[in-house]
Amino acid sequence: MLTIKNLLHQYRTGRTTVRRRLTELYRAASEAPAGIWISLIPEAQLEQYLARLERLSPDSLPLYGIPFAVKDNIDLAGIPTTAACPAYAYTPERSARVVELLVEAGAVPLGKTNMDQFATGLVGVRSPYGVTPNRLAPGYVAGGSSSGSAAALTHGLCSFSLGTDTAGSGRIPAAFNELVGVKPSRGLLSTRGVVPACRTLDCVSIFALTLEDAEILLEVTVKFDPKDAYSRAAPKVNPLPRRWKFGVPRDEELEFFGNRAYRDAFSRAVRRMEAAGGKRVTIDFAPFLAAARLLYEGPWVFERYAAVGGFIESHPGAALPVIETIITPGHTPHPSEVFRGMYRLQECKAKADAELAKVDLLLTPTAGTIYRIGEVEADPIRLNSNLGYYTNYMNLLDYAALAIPAARAGKLPFGVTLVGRAFDDGRLLEAARRFRLAEPYTVAVCGAHLAGMPLHSELEELGARFLGSAETAPRYRMYALEKGSVPKPALLRTEKDGTSFYVELYELSENAFARFAARIPPPLGLGMLELRDGSRVPGFIGEAVAAECGRDISGFADWRAYTRTCTKSEWKADSHAETNAV
Amino acid sequence: MLTIKNLLHQYRTGRTTVRRRLTELYRAASEAPAGIWISLIPEAQLEQYLARLERLSPDSLPLYGIPFAVKDNIDLAGIPTTAACPAYAYTPERSARVVELLVEAGAVPLGKTNMDQFATGLVGVRSPYGVTPNRLAPGYVAGGSSSGSAAALTHGLCSFSLGTDTAGSGRIPAAFNELVGVKPSRGLLSTRGVVPACRTLDCVSIFALTLEDAEILLEVTVKFDPKDAYSRAAPKVNPLPRRWKFGVPRDEELEFFGNRAYRDAFSRAVRRMEAAGGKRVTIDFAPFLAAARLLYEGPWVFERYAAVGGFIESHPGAALPVIETIITPGHTPHPSEVFRGMYRLQECKAKADAELAKVDLLLTPTAGTIYRIGEVEADPIRLNSNLGYYTNYMNLLDYAALAIPAARAGKLPFGVTLVGRAFDDGRLLEAARRFRLAEPYTVAVCGAHLAGMPLHSELEELGARFLGSAETAPRYRMYALEKGSVPKPALLRTEKDGTSFYVELYELSENAFARFAARIPPPLGLGMLELRDGSRVPGFIGEAVAAECGRDISGFADWRAYTRTCTKSEWKADSHAETNAV
Repeated sequence: MLTIKNLLHQYRTGRTTVRRRLTELYRAASEAPAGIWISLIPEAQLEQYLARLERLSPDSLPLYGIPFAVKDNIDLAGIPTTAACPAYAYTPERSARVVELLVEAGAVPLGKTNMDQFATGLVGVRSPYGVTPNRLAPGYVAGGSSSGSAAALTHGLCSFSLGTDTAGSGRIPAAFNELVGVKPSRGLLSTRGVVPACRTLDCVSIFALTLEDAEILLEVTVKFDPKDAYSRAAPKVNPLPRRWKFGVPRDEELEFFGNRAYRDAFSRAVRRMEAAGGKRVTIDFAPFLAAARLLYEGPWVFERYAAVGGFIESHPGAALPVIETIITPGHTPHPSEVFRGMYRLQECKAKADAELAKVDLLLTPTAGTIYRIGEVEADPIRLNSNLGYYTNYMNLLDYAALAIPAARAGKLPFGVTLVGRAFDDGRLLEAARRFRLAEPYTVAVCGAHLAGMPLHSELEELGARFLGSAETAPRYRMYALEKGSVPKPALLRTEKDGTSFYVELYELSENAFARFAARIPPPLGLGMLELRDGSRVPGFIGEAVAAECGRDISGFADWRAYTRTCTKSEWKADSHAETNAV
Repeated sequence: MLTIKNLLHQYRTGRTTVRRRLTELYRAASEAPAGIWISLIPEAQLEQYLARLERLSPDSLPLYGIPFAVKDNIDLAGIPTTAACPAYAYTPERSARVVELLVEAGAVPLGKTNMDQFATGLVGVRSPYGVTPNRLAPGYVAGGSSSGSAAALTHGLCSFSLGTDTAGSGRIPAAFNELVGVKPSRGLLSTRGVVPACRTLDCVSIFALTLEDAEILLEVTVKFDPKDAYSRAAPKVNPLPRRWKFGVPRDEELEFFGNRAYRDAFSRAVRRMEAAGGKRVTIDFAPFLAAARLLYEGPWVFERYAAVGGFIESHPGAALPVIETIITPGHTPHPSEVFRGMYRLQECKAKADAELAKVDLLLTPTAGTIYRIGEVEADPIRLNSNLGYYTNYMNLLDYAALAIPAARAGKLPFGVTLVGRAFDDGRLLEAARRFRLAEPYTVAVCGAHLAGMPLHSELEELGARFLGSAETAPRYRMYALEKGSVPKPALLRTEKDGTSFYVELYELSENAFARFAARIPPPLGLGMLELRDGSRVPGFIGEAVAAECGRDISGFADWRAYTRTCTKSEWKADSHAETNAV
């Protein structure tokens, strides 16, 4: 993995050089699929970065030789800024302030990434530079508007990337690319040198591979900028307490647009947050949703007009039709309506603040669903709007957000967002760390750990949760091992004459899973079992020697059925435990 | 004085009763000059307040029986709210939240006060209920828009009053009526139940007779109101340090519109603030002034339109022409212009914040001049605008302000404003206390304390500042007292055969003045000397006995001239000291 920690370690131990690594990545970037980059830096510019770094020790800079990508609405000196609109392009003499800080810290920008035009969109398909591919879910949108910046990470082209986030552009692509997406508190990162979308709301966002990287990057980039009128110095905030509460919208306010897998994935994430030590509190999400609607149904569309409306009107055909429809809606209300919209927002904020005051942070899905590219192209505005359900309110209400990956929804990427008050950024990172440590691991058991069997209590003591039963793929044979203190089966994969066996699936925390895996005696071990549906899950496997010392009992499809044919008293099922667990 | 402290003392010691006092004041209010009140509460309502209070002990409530006045854009249950526009009037069922809190604390609202219509004005003449009289400067405006609330105090009709302050309506009348005018941080006092002017900027303000009263009133009224979307809970703020700095605009940014007396009065106030221990720092006032201009030249006029523009347009002739001109200006720009105005404001705020960060607070005049009623009527918009020079930026920039009286500009009231960051309200009160303690006292000396005379060093040690020389009115005789350690003259006022004598005027701090006055030996004392111009100033006077024990030297118009005729060495002038002091 191209994490900052890994790369620095490689540079500092001499396993690679910054020249070798960045030259490789630059070549990979130039061969990358279409739709990720809008432009790469010229080779001569790469050479300048390398020459500078080669004069320095890898220990001398916190981001020494760390490659990154820059969304194409953020200035990089000498490279055109297009905002995904070629006619709008200009070539800045100076990099955006955040880029300057990163380069000073040793990071190397490889190029500018594709995006929804004028940062207006959450899909990653609204660009004349092509649709950004989703590597994790081919055929699905990559999320936008910072689509290319997210894709550059999933395609292994750099260590982190910069996006922007007004409506959710730094979070939706994080969800659809399994990345950490930091939407910092407004004003924490300078927006100097960024093409505005809604200048009162815009944030520069960060995509990172890990929470550790996100933290390192915030240390470099959070700096009061006296030349950015919207810059704010962060006040001190108390750390997240040991006993903490997280808010979750009421069931009827959770919207998944018919995507059951996403609904289930969110339920799992909530349980995981509880496993991480958070106390769940149901909050009223209505004021958040009411605020969200104001972004496109209230006066803030006129703020987008203030940014690029004049350009669009004076350059017919320069903008994509969908962008033109949104930014120049044709009707122009009385300017007093802008104030009325602000009052409505303030009413929402007062109520939302009161809800947020009940908890330490909120937990919501980052997106309620994910769409196929063709679906979005067929219904571009409505489906885009659906993706903003959990994101559009954030900057209007002046909150901090951290989008993090959660367990997949079936095969599709899924993420959750932690929401805090302005300047709670550090608290959100800490909550995310706790969430990560509570990551659930699944294990398939087929013998003495089945419910009612002698070793089932081990799972109970580790806090395992029963997920359901399943069958292995018909490619195993089972051998009874009767020499240990407790009789056990061993599953051996075979190329021919295989059959299916009954297994039970349990969920364990990371810590419990590690302890469980560390105590498996030979000739058994932990490997990947293939299930009948083709999926793989960690489970018990036998070494080849098991076939020699054990008895082939593959005629039984279930270890329990086999044990019932035996008479030894210790094999008896404990009916109490079985009732409880299943 | 009707201060809260005095009234409570009278109630608690039984010197008067709440019934007697409030009945007297209610009668006085109903006989008050026109232009102060718009309506008084009905007698039956007064009776209800009295009946409630009479059931309680005067010790039981912090504002027991304290009479106050309410600006007529703040709801008082059962009394019409007119905002000085009869056609707009409505009768609220419930009082504004701030009024509720005051009444709960024992205060008694006597009535609703006159104001510039829709709180749009700083003059107190824009009302169909008449021009508010200025008791301290007859013929001059009382200041607005909270004109009646201020006048009710100067006319001795109540102990404090409520105003509102968007552009300066709670500060300009304080300056012109020698009152303490608290313009709290936005959101500190609930604006629920107040007719909006610019809802994002409006504050309820307090007029008080003393700083102590202002502090008591803030304790009662500062309360987070969950039903006011703009309410804000005050964070903790560090107290004003012992060593502190105050910012003053650059000389060329100080604007007095030709009023030299106001310019001199401000110079004296700056010196007094230095005497109070503050270190003067010159700051760049340009961003403050640029922000101020946005209030009427930027989009915020459309916020006034959002409040009452629809009413004015649908009720032709209901509003005064000048109000209609301001609130419905005819041109309606694109709504994106509102955002552009906000960006300009934010640029100003970033710069102004940086200036304010150099100091603990700012000191400016509250108003740069004062106008005669006729002048304002002849040029209503421009002169009103001049009065907002030091006030219009305050709420736009989200600052706290405290208007306090300073030494008069000639015979005209003059005040200064202390400016702090949001929630610095307590620090401003503390700075005002230090300013008050440094109030300069003038003393006239005519003998041994004259520059170069033996006791002049006493003045020097007390930090006295030479103000100038003068002559007494021709109504004194002078006697030489030669018995003490140092020869001194005694001035005795006489009905006939009086003559004028040379005196020197010195300025002392309160503390120094007290020490000076406490050590004057008989047969001398401190009294009021009449000067040739008819003004009176504290100075040395002689007891009648001085005429018996002293020698009449009234032939000399100057003690120095007399001493030169003497030969005793200790009478000799110390030419060095003389040179320094004069």
